[in-house]
Amino acid sequence: MSEWCRFSVVYWHTFRGVGSDPFGPQTLFRPWDTADNTSIPFDDIVASCCGRVDAAFEFFTKLGVEYYAFHDRDVAPELATIDETNKLLEKVTDYMLVKQKETGVKLLWGTANLFSHPKFANGAATNPDIKVFAQACAQVKKAMEVTHKLGGEGYVFWGGREGYQTLLNTDIKKELDHMAAFFHMAVAHKKSIGATFQFYIEPKPKEPTKHQYDYDAQTVMCFLKQYGLDDHFLLNIEPNHSTLAGHNYEHDIVLSAAYGKLGSIDCNTGDELLGWDTDQFLTDERKATLVMKVVIDMGGFKTGGLNFDSKVRRESTDLEDLFIAHIGSMDTFAKGLLNAAKLIEDGRLDDMRKARYSTWTSDKIGAKVESGKATLAELEAYAKKNNDVKPISGKQELYERVFNDAL
Amino acid sequence: MSEWCRFSVVYWHTFRGVGSDPFGPQTLFRPWDTADNTSIPFDDIVASCCGRVDAAFEFFTKLGVEYYAFHDRDVAPELATIDETNKLLEKVTDYMLVKQKETGVKLLWGTANLFSHPKFANGAATNPDIKVFAQACAQVKKAMEVTHKLGGEGYVFWGGREGYQTLLNTDIKKELDHMAAFFHMAVAHKKSIGATFQFYIEPKPKEPTKHQYDYDAQTVMCFLKQYGLDDHFLLNIEPNHSTLAGHNYEHDIVLSAAYGKLGSIDCNTGDELLGWDTDQFLTDERKATLVMKVVIDMGGFKTGGLNFDSKVRRESTDLEDLFIAHIGSMDTFAKGLLNAAKLIEDGRLDDMRKARYSTWTSDKIGAKVESGKATLAELEAYAKKNNDVKPISGKQELYERVFNDAL
Amino acid sequence: MSEWCRFSVVYWHTFRGVGSDPFGPQTLFRPWDTADNTSIPFDDIVASCCGRVDAAFEFFTKLGVEYYAFHDRDVAPELATIDETNKLLEKVTDYMLVKQKETGVKLLWGTANLFSHPKFANGAATNPDIKVFAQACAQVKKAMEVTHKLGGEGYVFWGGREGYQTLLNTDIKKELDHMAAFFHMAVAHKKSIGATFQFYIEPKPKEPTKHQYDYDAQTVMCFLKQYGLDDHFLLNIEPNHSTLAGHNYEHDIVLSAAYGKLGSIDCNTGDELLGWDTDQFLTDERKATLVMKVVIDMGGFKTGGLNFDSKVRRESTDLEDLFIAHIGSMDTFAKGLLNAAKLIEDGRLDDMRKARYSTWTSDKIGAKVESGKATLAELEAYAKKNNDVKPISGKQELYERVFNDAL
Amino acid sequence: MSEWCRFSVVYWHTFRGVGSDPFGPQTLFRPWDTADNTSIPFDDIVASCCGRVDAAFEFFTKLGVEYYAFHDRDVAPELATIDETNKLLEKVTDYMLVKQKETGVKLLWGTANLFSHPKFANGAATNPDIKVFAQACAQVKKAMEVTHKLGGEGYVFWGGREGYQTLLNTDIKKELDHMAAFFHMAVAHKKSIGATFQFYIEPKPKEPTKHQYDYDAQTVMCFLKQYGLDDHFLLNIEPNHSTLAGHNYEHDIVLSAAYGKLGSIDCNTGDELLGWDTDQFLTDERKATLVMKVVIDMGGFKTGGLNFDSKVRRESTDLEDLFIAHIGSMDTFAKGLLNAAKLIEDGRLDDMRKARYSTWTSDKIGAKVESGKATLAELEAYAKKNNDVKPISGKQELYERVFNDAL
Repeated sequence: MSEWCRFSVVYWHTFRGVGSDPFGPQTLFRPWDTADNTSIPFDDIVASCCGRVDAAFEFFTKLGVEYYAFHDRDVAPELATIDETNKLLEKVTDYMLVKQKETGVKLLWGTANLFSHPKFANGAATNPDIKVFAQACAQVKKAMEVTHKLGGEGYVFWGGREGYQTLLNTDIKKELDHMAAFFHMAVAHKKSIGATFQFYIEPKPKEPTKHQYDYDAQTVMCFLKQYGLDDHFLLNIEPNHSTLAGHNYEHDIVLSAAYGKLGSIDCNTGDELLGWDTDQFLTDERKATLVMKVVIDMGGFKTGGLNFDSKVRRESTDLEDLFIAHIGSMDTFAKGLLNAAKLIEDGRLDDMRKARYSTWTSDKIGAKVESGKATLAELEAYAKKNNDVKPISGKQELYERVFNDAL
Repeated sequence: MSEWCRFSVVYWHTFRGVGSDPFGPQTLFRPWDTADNTSIPFDDIVASCCGRVDAAFEFFTKLGVEYYAFHDRDVAPELATIDETNKLLEKVTDYMLVKQKETGVKLLWGTANLFSHPKFANGAATNPDIKVFAQACAQVKKAMEVTHKLGGEGYVFWGGREGYQTLLNTDIKKELDHMAAFFHMAVAHKKSIGATFQFYIEPKPKEPTKHQYDYDAQTVMCFLKQYGLDDHFLLNIEPNHSTLAGHNYEHDIVLSAAYGKLGSIDCNTGDELLGWDTDQFLTDERKATLVMKVVIDMGGFKTGGLNFDSKVRRESTDLEDLFIAHIGSMDTFAKGLLNAAKLIEDGRLDDMRKARYSTWTSDKIGAKVESGKATLAELEAYAKKNNDVKPISGKQELYERVFNDAL
Repeated sequence: MSEWCRFSVVYWHTFRGVGSDPFGPQTLFRPWDTADNTSIPFDDIVASCCGRVDAAFEFFTKLGVEYYAFHDRDVAPELATIDETNKLLEKVTDYMLVKQKETGVKLLWGTANLFSHPKFANGAATNPDIKVFAQACAQVKKAMEVTHKLGGEGYVFWGGREGYQTLLNTDIKKELDHMAAFFHMAVAHKKSIGATFQFYIEPKPKEPTKHQYDYDAQTVMCFLKQYGLDDHFLLNIEPNHSTLAGHNYEHDIVLSAAYGKLGSIDCNTGDELLGWDTDQFLTDERKATLVMKVVIDMGGFKTGGLNFDSKVRRESTDLEDLFIAHIGSMDTFAKGLLNAAKLIEDGRLDDMRKARYSTWTSDKIGAKVESGKATLAELEAYAKKNNDVKPISGKQELYERVFNDAL
Repeated sequence: MSEWCRFSVVYWHTFRGVGSDPFGPQTLFRPWDTADNTSIPFDDIVASCCGRVDAAFEFFTKLGVEYYAFHDRDVAPELATIDETNKLLEKVTDYMLVKQKETGVKLLWGTANLFSHPKFANGAATNPDIKVFAQACAQVKKAMEVTHKLGGEGYVFWGGREGYQTLLNTDIKKELDHMAAFFHMAVAHKKSIGATFQFYIEPKPKEPTKHQYDYDAQTVMCFLKQYGLDDHFLLNIEPNHSTLAGHNYEHDIVLSAAYGKLGSIDCNTGDELLGWDTDQFLTDERKATLVMKVVIDMGGFKTGGLNFDSKVRRESTDLEDLFIAHIGSMDTFAKGLLNAAKLIEDGRLDDMRKARYSTWTSDKIGAKVESGKATLAELEAYAKKNNDVKPISGKQELYERVFNDAL
């Protein structure tokens, strides 16, 4: 079961989340919180960061997960210069490497936080100011190197500020060209350092930016095609982002898998009636089943996994709530996996769906169309001969019932 | 002004719209309504259809528009066999050709209605039953031929039933493969009949289908790239569909124009707080200005135009409401055109936006990035030298104010 | 179990639904369909209507439900005059009474269709034209009398056209005053005919109208209070309408129950990502459990029930789909009832919630506040003495897990 | 013009807004920012707060507005005890009183911030813990006293945390009873201190809480009726909250005005395609016209005004952006006022609307219905006599055109 699920805990929500929201500050106070005071001596900063690393690996181990994920700035704050910042990041990640070896916990993916620092307010790779673009390049270069050092199986790009707040002040073509140049340089750098991790892009339609360029799975796939980046990236799908884009929970997962582009999953859930990312822990096994069905159908994850990009509620102020939340959601996905396996063994759902398309194989013309050799004139002739089309029920209610049988 | 606007009236809403909605039947009764009784003699059907053609061209002429658009089934009903149906369509469109010559009114684009007939309930080009797929092929073949005969400047595909109601019963990859095969055959057929009209795809995210494959501009552009169809299609953007997909009114217009894919515009508006296509006549000159700015910036339409895919409200039961509605919206777009020209002459908005990206040209490294020759290491070096990034205000409020000055 | 569920089948979707949508006509053809041709002899119309009644009662009986619901126009069409229409309705409902006695199936509620006829395009009780208002009065008078005759346990008002399409042409205060007058007359008429059925109002925020006055449960409760109608109406809640109003599936059910105003439930489901009423059969037992918990907590329905205001999909063209759909959803609610009972027996959820408010009873000041006798000054004094407020976790994740245990 | 507009600047966004969002910290750095360090000596805290007061009044004066609004915690931070906090608030507001007299700027309304402090995470007046409820009482008591001292014309309650995150852990009836008790105590306290300011409740449907009890105008009006609070409160409507509740920009303004409950307006705008409060400065004169039409029609504000609960964008980092934004929006509302006056003088819109309801006065039966003396039987008789109802066009397109003429 752990091979299919490949659960991963996130550093940001679980070890850096403070429970603030736009209308109130920190409510979640943790034993591993230490002042993010960067004016203390360098060694004290290192010590403070490593203390949090200890807490994180203790949590991973107690919970029994095999993976985790982090942003560079989650584990070590930004200092006055790039060199100092990188030196600190190096120190802290060296210690993380020690802890990885000690515990056997692995890095699912690393990433750079290119959206929190005020300098990224107008974007990182799409910033109108090349000085900021350069800052993003420097940061992502280091984050890739650190991920490589830690043996990360993947590296994620999430462009929360790559987009526009108003079209009035934005040249979207120029910004997208720059974003593509940025990705091409990342591809080259990955090669130059000999890294083998998988690159992912994570779509999100909005929030914090009014419109984000990586709107949803197909928008990202469009961008990759337009700029010749298709071979180098898979997608990291977060269902809470899919629903924000107006799609069903599982839509982007199904869609990207259909084109061989599903790499990893940020397995949270949102509230379809709220217009922002609530990043909740999924406890609905119906949804978990739909997701795990896709995972099984594609033969399981290769480099990806089920990454809990989920946070306890701002009001869930007990330390134990972190355990309750993760365990509850792990159980949900485990149940989803069992249900999906049951569905597949039962076979009815897949058989019904296959039978639905059977005229495409029973009649020769089907293969000809699929091979690209047919013409409209041939199809017209066929249509005239087969003019008495009988309605075939879509039988949605029956599919839903058969699906329910597996729950 | 008429060269920039190229207004077009639609046959469906204006001459076939009856005001029905999911909770009530026809409220709009027109002098040109004649029973769609297809059991009367063939010649009587022809006469009934041609009577409506007369009314339509009278309206076009009185209104003073140069273009119109229609679906095959708007002008002539489907009869028992493909041959009979086509014969009728031929007769009626012959008469339309006469009226075109007589009045000088031209066909902006033609299209086939592949969504109303019950046989298309589960899709046309994506139907699980190849018999239905063939019906769609036969129909689109004829519609293309008729459009060619009428000198149509474009031909539109809108796939209202190409999508899914539930993923449980759907093989999306197979359906999309079939849709691509369908388009490839259309491309070949266009060549074989020597047609020069422009193919367009019109995106829409949902309604009537729960999820439609042509979700929005970028999704369609993704599909075209994936299936090697990119060279043969432009987009026909309807803002009411863009807002249904969660985008600003002008977003898909701006986005498709940025990649040279904007072909034509269905210039209606919706209600952002309602989840269905209300197809209203736009009377908000702010939105018209945003659209016409893009049209001017791209040098005007080539084959496309401003097509009023808009309908009078179900409660607007007077015949004169058709005139009031069209005139009101034509005035709005005319005002939008003038405003956009004023904005461009004034120059401030474009200058401000250009200046916003000036560091990309003032510093050599910018050109190197844009040419694809830079590396992350170079950018990192540049970043270290330029570490004191100063915030540059996005000045949205100022852009909004300058924009307002043109209204 | 049947006492708790009180399942009801609806005449409109199940016996009059044709599968049309805004982009296509009828796809569902039924053996009991007979031409709604009202120019045939009166007795033939009666016969045609009674044939459908036979089919309906056969379905109720085979399915094993105890209740049904109908609009006047579902069972008998409108004829040229009010007298003729009423005569027909009388005849058909006389036959329905015979069938009720024969089968033991009862009428959950009756209602008048005040939204389909073109005369109601601008509203019924809120129509700007008093002639239309009068038509609505005449129709509702008769529908109440017929419901009374059939021993209906309830009578529902759903005001699909009571609202506005644009505020520009609407005097909302005048329209709401008229709607209130209409309800007061209905209350008086109920008394005058000695009817004992329960009046319900069914909220819906939009569709077909842009804004409907009966937006949601609390809006209706506001209206009832404003116009002194509070004592005479309960609510009939449809979850698909609640989600259209931006509320959780169960929100309006919980809210109206809290104030003793929950009368009956139209137990369908919608699609939270679509902006219209999809009226689907619920198959999600999680939602069914949330609903049935409220039903048990309030001691069960009195006059109301679980009314399947649900329709098979337009693509579900087989006759058997009607059975599959109803059975699937009945099973879902039955499972929901069992789960809810299990939750209550288990007790943890209710105990946790009760304990959450325990300081209101443990400290005397709580009772004083609740009795309305406390002052801000007293509370301030108490606050000063109890200034060290400790955070108490909301424990949402734990509640969700405990809830899941019952599924 | 200033009498009709009564513009007011808000202390929170304009003097305390830092540009943070859920994905990034402060971007807006102001000269009047001083460390909110509450461990410095008391007098230094006072000095720091008064420095910000100076900046605020300088801004009010330069901008030329007559009003401002504030939360208690905007002007003075919370200290360790209630007494210390109140002492500080007293000192700072004493200085504000001096500045008011000096400049002539007045207080539109005061309020207490009952949502930011972590203790309010689970609500203030609806908190399950009476200790927190008491804290809220103490705070609102002081805020009312301070508002009274400053001659505030109004006092606002906005319950951002009064609601639920999940129904599973919530007893909504108990919470609403407590909220009502809280308001009753506030009413009593107002009387006891001899204050004459107007109480307002400001509706908002969601954010930060998943569901907020004060969902929209009618929900609040329902609550006030249910708990006998109707006489003591008017509404403060924020259009950005109306659109979040699924209503048109002007809906809650029109609706509350219709029932004499419109008190004041938080005159910002949102983005209908984003699901959170963007609190933007309105620059769309169409919307401003719709609002000002209501304001004129009700004879102008009495105690309320147009309060700019609006913030410059996070990316608008220049100090001058504050001026640009306010001036731009003031111009927009001024234009809206002129347009509305023009509409009224022109008279066509009001006349058309009045004429639409003319059958209610031309026929005696109309007055009888409106007086509550008619019966369904009488209306039925009238309907039979007037059975040939003619459709009357709603003429929405004409109304929109006439409206446009005023812009």
